Amino acid sequence: MSEKIFPTPQDVEAAFYEALERSDYDAMAAVWAEDEDVVCVHPGGPRLCGTEQVLAQWKRILASGQQLRVRLSHEVVVSNTMVAMHSVHENITIEGAGPTPNPVIATNVYLRVGPGWRMVAHHASPAPGPARVDSPPPATATL
Amino acid sequence: MSEKIFPTPQDVEAAFYEALERSDYDAMAAVWAEDEDVVCVHPGGPRLCGTEQVLAQWKRILASGQQLRVRLSHEVVVSNTMVAMHSVHENITIEGAGPTPNPVIATNVYLRVGPGWRMVAHHASPAPGPARVDSPPPATATL
Repeated sequence: MSEKIFPTPQDVEAAFYEALERSDYDAMAAVWAEDEDVVCVHPGGPRLCGTEQVLAQWKRILASGQQLRVRLSHEVVVSNTMVAMHSVHENITIEGAGPTPNPVIATNVYLRVGPGWRMVAHHASPAPGPARVDSPPPATATL
Repeated sequence: MSEKIFPTPQDVEAAFYEALERSDYDAMAAVWAEDEDVVCVHPGGPRLCGTEQVLAQWKRILASGQQLRVRLSHEVVVSNTMVAMHSVHENITIEGAGPTPNPVIATNVYLRVGPGWRMVAHHASPAPGPARVDSPPPATATL
């Protein structure tokens, strides 16, 4: 496990998206807690569980050569001294292809581990359209 | 705000899925914390934010007449005395239509509020196929 220490959940979040933008696997590996109970859901993907499985998938993604820029918005935070949940919109630009039309919704959970913080959950799913607060989905949507 | 007290995160989770199965809006309203920072993402839907918007959408969904049965599996828990994150697979059966082929992945976050616990986040997205741990998504999937 990396010895890197992230003093706050915000530091982990910044490092997570920086690792993604730089396609830096070692930096991504340093972000995650080492535990069989960490979970990661990529948009449209299954739930990956445990650090080994989560990082194996990140290694594939980061090796794919796709260059991304991610601007976060709409951040909502629930936290205490040991656990933090950040809900964000990821506004993504793919290098060479321009900005994606809709944000990705991400729920990120961070846990205090020893002297610092690590990521323990990343659940991402595509939003159906530009972020709006005045237009909920149709009533036929289920849970 | 409802005066109902849920002594543990597990109690909130049980009440949440029971309210859903019974299409019981009042029971659903009792589950959620009253705060502008609660968030809810239905599969394929946008992020709803704040108790008022979240419950308005639940009112529509629960009034739609669709009867569901939800069996949880694959639960992963990260928690302390104030915040709990439960990651689950929702295995859903629609009355009259049978079981849905793929589970829904849900990240549920609970917060201790006064003497009891409430839900502060529900992020749900469809899994691409039957739950498997040996088949990660293709490397082209992004965050």
